[in-house]
This record gives sequence, C-alpha cells and structure tokens, in this order.
Amino acid sequence: MTPRKTDQREGGNVARREAAAAGPGSRALVVDLIRSAGPISRVELVEQTGLTQPTISNIVRRLIADGVVRETGETVATGGKPRALLVINSQALFGVGMHLGPDTITAVATNARGGTVGHELVARPADHDPSVLADTLIGLYRSLTQGLDLDPHTIAGLTVVGPGPVDVARGRLLGPGEHGEQAGFDLGAALSRALAIPALVDNDATAAAIGEFWGRQVSRDRTFGCLYLGAGIGSGVVLDGALHRGASSNSGEIGHNTVVRDGAPCVCGNRGCLERYASPSVLVDRARATPGLAERLEIAAEDGYGHAFDTLARAAVYGDADASALIEESARWLADAAVTLANLWDLDTLVLAGPGFAVAGSIYVREIRERLADRAFARRLHPVAVDLSSNPRDSAAIGGAALILQGSVAPGHGPQVAMRA
Amino acid sequence: MTPRKTDQREGGNVARREAAAAGPGSRALVVDLIRSAGPISRVELVEQTGLTQPTISNIVRRLIADGVVRETGETVATGGKPRALLVINSQALFGVGMHLGPDTITAVATNARGGTVGHELVARPADHDPSVLADTLIGLYRSLTQGLDLDPHTIAGLTVVGPGPVDVARGRLLGPGEHGEQAGFDLGAALSRALAIPALVDNDATAAAIGEFWGRQVSRDRTFGCLYLGAGIGSGVVLDGALHRGASSNSGEIGHNTVVRDGAPCVCGNRGCLERYASPSVLVDRARATPGLAERLEIAAEDGYGHAFDTLARAAVYGDADASALIEESARWLADAAVTLANLWDLDTLVLAGPGFAVAGSIYVREIRERLADRAFARRLHPVAVDLSSNPRDSAAIGGAALILQGSVAPGHGPQVAMRA
Repeated sequence: MTPRKTDQREGGNVARREAAAAGPGSRALVVDLIRSAGPISRVELVEQTGLTQPTISNIVRRLIADGVVRETGETVATGGKPRALLVINSQALFGVGMHLGPDTITAVATNARGGTVGHELVARPADHDPSVLADTLIGLYRSLTQGLDLDPHTIAGLTVVGPGPVDVARGRLLGPGEHGEQAGFDLGAALSRALAIPALVDNDATAAAIGEFWGRQVSRDRTFGCLYLGAGIGSGVVLDGALHRGASSNSGEIGHNTVVRDGAPCVCGNRGCLERYASPSVLVDRARATPGLAERLEIAAEDGYGHAFDTLARAAVYGDADASALIEESARWLADAAVTLANLWDLDTLVLAGPGFAVAGSIYVREIRERLADRAFARRLHPVAVDLSSNPRDSAAIGGAALILQGSVAPGHGPQVAMRA
Repeated sequence: MTPRKTDQREGGNVARREAAAAGPGSRALVVDLIRSAGPISRVELVEQTGLTQPTISNIVRRLIADGVVRETGETVATGGKPRALLVINSQALFGVGMHLGPDTITAVATNARGGTVGHELVARPADHDPSVLADTLIGLYRSLTQGLDLDPHTIAGLTVVGPGPVDVARGRLLGPGEHGEQAGFDLGAALSRALAIPALVDNDATAAAIGEFWGRQVSRDRTFGCLYLGAGIGSGVVLDGALHRGASSNSGEIGHNTVVRDGAPCVCGNRGCLERYASPSVLVDRARATPGLAERLEIAAEDGYGHAFDTLARAAVYGDADASALIEESARWLADAAVTLANLWDLDTLVLAGPGFAVAGSIYVREIRERLADRAFARRLHPVAVDLSSNPRDSAAIGGAALILQGSVAPGHGPQVAMRA
C-alpha cells in the first residue's frame, strides 16, 4: 500500500564526492538554499537538506564567520524558541564579470546575491594582439573596482566571458569570433597575474545561465535553461543548482545545430547552422539587402551590427512591416530552438538572455511561449515557463561575476579557482 | 603558483540531499564505483569517494550483508596489510525489463551486473485494451522467471519501457505509438499488484542509456549519451552515473526536433520532426514506394515494419544500391542528430542502441563517427567516442532491468521504488 515515489530528477542527485557531512558539497548546498529560499531558518535548512541539526549549525557558523551569510535580526515565532533568519551577506563579497562582444566590452561588479553594483561599457580594441586585449581588461577592472571604491579583499575575482569554444582549464577563448592569436594565449593566467586575483574565462551563454539562475533566485529543483542571443546563439542549463558543463565546458551550443540540411558552411565546421539564419548579424545583413530599409531606418554603413540590430529591432517593435518580418522570422527560428532545448532537457523553465533580446525581447517571448505550448513534447505533463531576462544586455557579464562568486562562497559547487602566477 | 583546477563537470557535483556521510547517496556512489571500477579495494574506495575509512567500512559491510557486493577472495599485496577486492555480487539479485515494440514484446532478465540471463520475444496482442496488454506482460514475467528458476526473493522487480511521453510517476505510457486507452491506465500499479513486485514504466531510449552505461562499465566521469533507433528516435544522457531526467522524465526526445522547417506535422504536435525523415517505418515506406525494390528484397505487404526494415538494412549491408541509398540517407540524418547531442551536452561518449541499429549498425557508426570528427563543436578540445551497442535489439529491455536494479541496490540513485497494491 506504500505509494510509489519516483525521483523525477536523478541527474545530479548523487554527489561525485560527498566527503564528510559538513564537506564542501554540503556548504554549497546550504549557500544555494539560503540564496534561493532565504530568509530561511536553521530548522528549515535541516528539513530541506536532510543534514543533521549539528551539521547545519556548524556550516552556518562558518558561513557567518566567513561573512558569506548573516542573520537578518528578525525571528520567526514558532510557539517554541524563536528562529533567527539567515540571508546571503550581499555586501561582504563582490564579483567582477566582463563580456567580450564583437565591438564592445561590458564590465559589471555584483554583490554576493548577484545584484549589479557597478557597470562600464568600453569599445573593444581593434588590435587583435591578445596582450592588447589583456591590457584593456586590466585597465577596465581597475577603473571599475576603484571607481566603486571596493575593498580589494572583498573581491572574489574576475571572469571574462565570450563565445565558445572555450578552453576553461587553460584560460583560452577559442571562439569563432576570436582571432587566431587568442588560441595560444592564456588570458586567465595573464589577468590573474597582473591583478593578483583569481581569473577565469568561460562561455557567455553558460555564464548567462548561472547568472539568471542566481539573480532570479530560482529554486534548485527546476530544470532551468537559458537561451542566449548575442553575437551568436547559445544556451546553458542549470541542474540541481549547478551548470551542466559536459566534457569540456562547451555544452549548450544550439546555435551550431544544423537547421537546414546541407546548408551553408559555418565557421564552426558544421553546415546549415541556426546562427546562419537567426543571429543578429545575419538579420542586419538581410535588412541591408532589403531595398530602402537601411535608409528608412537610418542604419549607416559604418554601424556595427549590434547597434544596427537594435535599430532594426526597435523598428519592429514600432511596427515597421519590413523590420517586423525579419525579426519575426528570427523569432520563429528561435522558437524551434526553444522546442529542441525543452525536448532534449525536459525543461520546465526557460529564460531569454543576451543583447539580441534587449529591444525586441517581447516579440521573441511571445513566439517562443506559443510554440512551446503548442509543440513541446511533454506539454501534456507540464508547461515550460518562459521569461525574459530583466537585463538581457548585461546578463553574460553578470553571469561571469556569478561564476567567480559561486566558486568562492560555495567551493565544490562552482569552478575551483585559485590564483596562478 | 598553485595550478588552477577547474571542475569541468559541475552538473551533479553536489547532491540535492546529502544526508549523513553514510546516507543513501553514499551507498549509491560506492555501488556505482564497485560496478564500474571493480574489483576494487576499500582503500581505493576511500581515495575515490573522499568518504572516510570508517564510513566506507560501514557501507561495504552492509552491502555484503545485503548480498549486493562480495569479496573476490583475492587480495592485493601492498607491502602492508593485503587488501581484499570487492565486486558486485552478480548472482544475488536479478532485474526484469520488458520492451514494448510496435509488434513485439521483448523480455529480459539480467543479473546485478547487467548481464542477460534470460530472454523471451513474443508477439504484442492486437487488442488495444490495456488490461489485455497487462495480462500478456504478467504471463510473460511468470514464464521468463519460472523458466529460469529464479528465486522470487532475488528479483528486484520489473520495468516496462516504450516510446515517450511517459508519466513515470503515475505508471502510464502516453507514447504516440500507444493507444488512447493506455493514457488512463496505471500499468505500473496493475503489474505491481498482480505480481507483488515493484514495477515501473519508463521511456525506452532513457532505459537503453542507463543499461548501456551499466553494461559497458562506463566510468561515471564520462559525459555519456545514447542515441536510440527503435520505432522512433530517442536519446538518453547519463551524468555522474545517473540518468538526466528533466522535469518529467521526458528528456532526450531528439526524434521530435524540427529538422525541416514548417515540415510535415508529426503525431507529437511539432512539425518537420527528425522521425518523419529517418525512422525505420519511414524508410520502409520509401522502400515500398521505390519501383521494384520491395519485390526484389522480398518485403511482403503484410510484413511488420520491424521485419521489413531488417530486410532493407541487410540488403544495404550486402550492397544493394537502392537499399544503401535509403539507409545512408537515414545515417546522414542521424549523424546530424549526433552532432546536435554532442553540441548540446558536450558529450565525450556516444553509444548507438535500439533495434534499428541491429543489422546495419556499422553503416550508421561510420557516418556518425566521421560527422562528429568533422563537425562537433568541441572537436579541437576532445573527441567523441562512438560505439555500437553489443546488443542493440535488446538494449531497451536490458535498460529496464538496469533501472529496477539501480533503484534496488543503490537507493537514492535510481528511481525510488516500492510496491503498490
């Protein structure tokens, strides 16, 4: 007569390394629960983690000593002893994230809850020498953190994110948009050495996924996906509170799915890739090829594609027929991609992030919601909630900051980071 | 100067519920290590799990008492105290899996290491009444287990697998190939009640993935995918030794990816799905539409598609030009699908399983290996190893047996199963 219980989510249900009950995995779990469910009491942490009361007390004591967590000062009356409530100590630790766009670099600093405390946008150097890029990033880091008057001891480090492929272990951005010189240059080590902080490189879409997961305080029992529209099209998935990385941290490359069989060759080596039909640069090229459109929208020949795409997207929002046709075409492609992501991961939550969604995000959200409701494979069992990032333009940089914070406040959970000289 | 270590595989690195150090997750971890790395000593288990020596001793003692694990009798000389070696006690526990094909039902019994000890194949009843199907499965279970003279106390239970969608929690197969009557019928409960054993239903491709992972003794640090060609096309992914399930156990549905935009409507609700271009039934229809081919290959009008596809595949292997053209066309579609899987999950290992690969598997393996080597997104960072199941026809049924064994020997790892009346 026992009702059968089926765990719907085996993936990640078992730690690879569980160590002692108070080991790094447990600390990460507690930090993640306080982040997503806080303010929360120790008693609730015991209930939700399955850890013992002494173990929770020990972990919380250490987190408070480390400044990661604080008591709110409020208590919950329960009839018995009042329970103190715990939250992430947002001002004790900061992370820095930088996103390399094709023409610009976005830098953000966030607090330990993922809230943005500082932001800078600079032009990307035209020089492809990687040490020139490194110098720019070093200057940007100093300008940002000194401008905010952040105590260097409170900065967890820096993550630089860009299009994949990435070689996370060797600090290299190998992305198709990056120039050959980058491939042999350990950008992570160069930045870590110059700034004396932990520094990582990572994929922009992956970073955006963990940033959105943190920033939106998503519960770790969701199957959470992020569809990213930047220079290219990518995605990231968070399972049990941690990014799915795969064999080499290059998962999520939905932009390089073949959507037109034997279609045009892509820089990635595949053919007929989604990016060749739906990415902002392709749409801008098409807008320029549409007679009279570029002139009418005042898209200049020298405009970078990011700026030109914003102009096109704005015209679509305002109802220009030619612009709408192009953006809606792109939205239909991305809706197919959303169904692919939902069907392969069995997602219940999807967030749209990246600069491509900054202006005409509502057009994409509408199309993707409708498509998932009509066509997602498991739609008879559960819906897929679709939402737009509250800051799509900065989401990759914010995610970079989240990645370095995650590794710092919850070791064993995010990437393990240490300084390298 | 500390070298930075980046954990390449955060997904699943942290348990949702870690409980005490000797909790269910740790038992699952130890069982999985003994399964994949055994014969293995207690000292090596301490090293590989990060658990303490007393914890490992306790877990192993209980596993031996439960009959799940045994000592080989051999020891390793280390200079100090000789170390006893542990293996899974393959004869102490058996699982039964049944695969519902369109025309046939395959039943297998496996030992605790996933080795097949019994096999039966019967015709599927033409009657669509789900209680008729349940009666057939009950009879098949009794015939199989009594024929093998298995002690009922050593049988962990039964998993019935078929095409998705599945409602694992409510014991229902909702698959597009299943008839409407199935949707309201709790097959799992009916079987559990009649046979007085734990009984599950699950997706065939998902089951095949965990079966291949177990049977091949794959290490849990691989990012392991299985591409399944049965009545439809599916996939499953194993991360850190456990299936990725997603929100409702309906992940991996690569057969319902749109591969031809605005293509023909599919029974799943989507359009232009991969299954409509590359599944065995579609190829058989095409073979029948090719002038003279069905006659030449002696594919009769009344042949079920499974048998007809085997005939077609055999002709392709023997070099019939028309048959080769059809099979190679299907292989090219599946190679695109393999790139999609590799790119989204960043796989390092892919196994091809399912009856569709039973005859012409080598044609598919060749095409998929070449495509991944040429076009996988992360190919500059690592290869994707591609291999054919050693028993593609039975892999879903074997996987069903693995699922029920996993839940039994390693609770907290596989689905939690209990009997229902």
